[in-house]
Amino acid sequence: MTYVKNRERLLDHGNRAAREMALEIVERALAQADPYRAVRRLVKLEGDILTVGSHTFNLSRAGRIFVVGAGKATFPIARALEDILGERIRRGIVICKYGQEGELTRIEKRLASHPVPDESGFAAAQDILALVRETQPGDIVFAAFTGGSSALMPYPVAGVTLEEKKQVNRLLLYSGANIIEINAVRKHLSQIKGGRLARAIHPGAHIINLTVSDVIGDPLDYITCPTVPDTSTFAQARATLTKYGLWDKVPASVREYLKNAGPGEESPKDLSDHNLYNFVAVPGTAACRGAYAAARELGLSALILSTMLEGESREVGGTFADIAREIRASGQPLTPPCAVIGGGETTVRISGHCGEGGPNQEFALGAALRLGEVKSAALASVDTDGTDGPTQLAGALVDETTLARAQAAGINLDAALAEHDVSAALRDLGEVVITGATGTNVNDLKVLVVLP
Amino acid sequence: MTYVKNRERLLDHGNRAAREMALEIVERALAQADPYRAVRRLVKLEGDILTVGSHTFNLSRAGRIFVVGAGKATFPIARALEDILGERIRRGIVICKYGQEGELTRIEKRLASHPVPDESGFAAAQDILALVRETQPGDIVFAAFTGGSSALMPYPVAGVTLEEKKQVNRLLLYSGANIIEINAVRKHLSQIKGGRLARAIHPGAHIINLTVSDVIGDPLDYITCPTVPDTSTFAQARATLTKYGLWDKVPASVREYLKNAGPGEESPKDLSDHNLYNFVAVPGTAACRGAYAAARELGLSALILSTMLEGESREVGGTFADIAREIRASGQPLTPPCAVIGGGETTVRISGHCGEGGPNQEFALGAALRLGEVKSAALASVDTDGTDGPTQLAGALVDETTLARAQAAGINLDAALAEHDVSAALRDLGEVVITGATGTNVNDLKVLVVLP
Repeated sequence: MTYVKNRERLLDHGNRAAREMALEIVERALAQADPYRAVRRLVKLEGDILTVGSHTFNLSRAGRIFVVGAGKATFPIARALEDILGERIRRGIVICKYGQEGELTRIEKRLASHPVPDESGFAAAQDILALVRETQPGDIVFAAFTGGSSALMPYPVAGVTLEEKKQVNRLLLYSGANIIEINAVRKHLSQIKGGRLARAIHPGAHIINLTVSDVIGDPLDYITCPTVPDTSTFAQARATLTKYGLWDKVPASVREYLKNAGPGEESPKDLSDHNLYNFVAVPGTAACRGAYAAARELGLSALILSTMLEGESREVGGTFADIAREIRASGQPLTPPCAVIGGGETTVRISGHCGEGGPNQEFALGAALRLGEVKSAALASVDTDGTDGPTQLAGALVDETTLARAQAAGINLDAALAEHDVSAALRDLGEVVITGATGTNVNDLKVLVVLP
Repeated sequence: MTYVKNRERLLDHGNRAAREMALEIVERALAQADPYRAVRRLVKLEGDILTVGSHTFNLSRAGRIFVVGAGKATFPIARALEDILGERIRRGIVICKYGQEGELTRIEKRLASHPVPDESGFAAAQDILALVRETQPGDIVFAAFTGGSSALMPYPVAGVTLEEKKQVNRLLLYSGANIIEINAVRKHLSQIKGGRLARAIHPGAHIINLTVSDVIGDPLDYITCPTVPDTSTFAQARATLTKYGLWDKVPASVREYLKNAGPGEESPKDLSDHNLYNFVAVPGTAACRGAYAAARELGLSALILSTMLEGESREVGGTFADIAREIRASGQPLTPPCAVIGGGETTVRISGHCGEGGPNQEFALGAALRLGEVKSAALASVDTDGTDGPTQLAGALVDETTLARAQAAGINLDAALAEHDVSAALRDLGEVVITGATGTNVNDLKVLVVLP
């Protein structure tokens, strides 16, 4: 399988050998982060014995099997479960993003909008809640919640409309808040998230959480939030609004609800009455670790700088460029041929005008501004789900020619960054990476390659 | 010699072993960047034969020896020359920053203000120009211009007052412009910089430039600008004012001069009629390389991330924290005990209010915000001249306790960063590094230590 759709376009200019190497590493990294393969490794059925990691379930004595889920990496989990369990699955509903290809036979595939929620997701959320309310003791519920489920499965608290929730969502996405902070708010405006869905499942049933992490450190309650105890609080949700100056911007209903919510409305902090089994099928670092292994296989010396990169995207991109310059100048920290791998969730803080772009594209452009004269190098920065920010682009691939070509073409990269309008510039320069939906959704991936 | 004056205060809290190690590396790095020692290695006198690097001069056939210079690292060069050449030095003037300790016997030590120029520097600049006008064929002029000479040796073009030049200086320092951009402006508002001083030296004399670099890549015309050909142009000076929106802020005289200056006023691009010998006695990377060597001597695994770090200080600091977290979590890119060394000239972009602080202090604080839970680690960030930004502090030393102690003490680090008012917070927490004038002035140094 090939992920990058526009490989030839990316290779028709610049440092071809370095670009090819960077793209090959990205391809292999994405394959290593594939949820279908991870679930097939993790979940096994032999006769009536179902094994999930180190847990076994005797299906001849168990009840019915349900599958529920939502998220950008949920479809391949559902498909893997169908391929493993076939007709043993009684019923299921998973909510995927519009455009999700592929068919399911036993599980209903519902489509909804991301990153801005819509009525279709709301209806599917209600159906999922109704479905799990049918559970009885002994039943097994596979819960496959992955990144993006917050938007795909909206179910606002009473008094807050979906339109108002969308408005909050938009404000949060453009505030510069990180996903932990964003989710603290979302979970406290939802009837389903923050462990509330698990409460609707019969305590005598088994809940098997299978997830793919796009949050640094894989905190389960942020990536699998409907079916694990919540660690966030109303206090944290309020603190996020304060930190990013959003109190005056959110709708009055949200402001009132968050200000007045009492302890009884707090999300569950303890689900120990339930039979909960949690598996991170694909950790957030999977693409990073896959890229490191790929670089070594390809004969490069390599290092993982960090799988936990945060901060302003363009600035971290600039630091990658500074590392590339050092490699070229002194052979430190690595001697070419080499690769510096990074991952995490760098962000973009918007103030003022905002055009079309995303954190990986800004990362690449921030690097391109300082990559001048670093011969035989290339830097790829991609969102592993294939969608960087609100764009249809996975990210970008740049090298020392990017800035010079921009200048020759009269494209002002500084201005593009200042206006957070980088997609057009990168597209004109032939530097965007297009994958479509990859089926996975782990932390962002940065691959710097420097050849001799 | 010990550079850090407040060692005990820095060690009375936090991760003592990691802090001690980081400080020891800083001490050894500064020693490796000492200009006095570098000049003693570079310049030798045996009988009448003066050797500078690979060049030899027979003093029995040469003319008089003069020494001129200005800058934060100039004093130890002058002292080394006196110790080597003694009474063979005919005359000399060097301009040092107020507070410069130590005596010279053959060379006049003049004191002036930095970073804001003053009349005393102006007078000394005029005296230096008058001195070099006395040169004759065969004379040897040692020119020791180092970082800070722009402010210490002001000599504005006709029509621009020193007060107006100061105003430009201030605007540039707080604009976020890098030193290359700043100097392009300064050199085009000066009667002495940008190679103009060299033009006043008799072409038959020898000019031996001995410098210490605080500019990434050691571009001679930026660190030794009065006595080497200039590569910057009026066009670049104008572009800097445009890029940072300064045209409307600079005094009218400056605006008019820069707008109307003709080609005849351009700085010299060619001094090939002169006998010029250029030596970077201490390169900008010296502290970095010294820190790397020290870490290895101390038994740590180590890497130089980059000697060319640029960008927004707090963000680059944050990336160092992300690397520390990865080291702690996975042993990548190094296994403890280890050190990650960085250098360069990260900057602070000021918008709005500006309190007391500097780029190394913001770097450290930016890191401290994300160092929580990285046990047994410490991160030092210092300006090698002992003066971070406009402060009397060299920089700061932080670890995972910094943020927690700030929270316990009610000190809001986010607010301190937002207001660029970080010195007070760091001082209250006992995290400032104080060295006084170190005698050297190379690129900033970052030392991250993680112990097992």
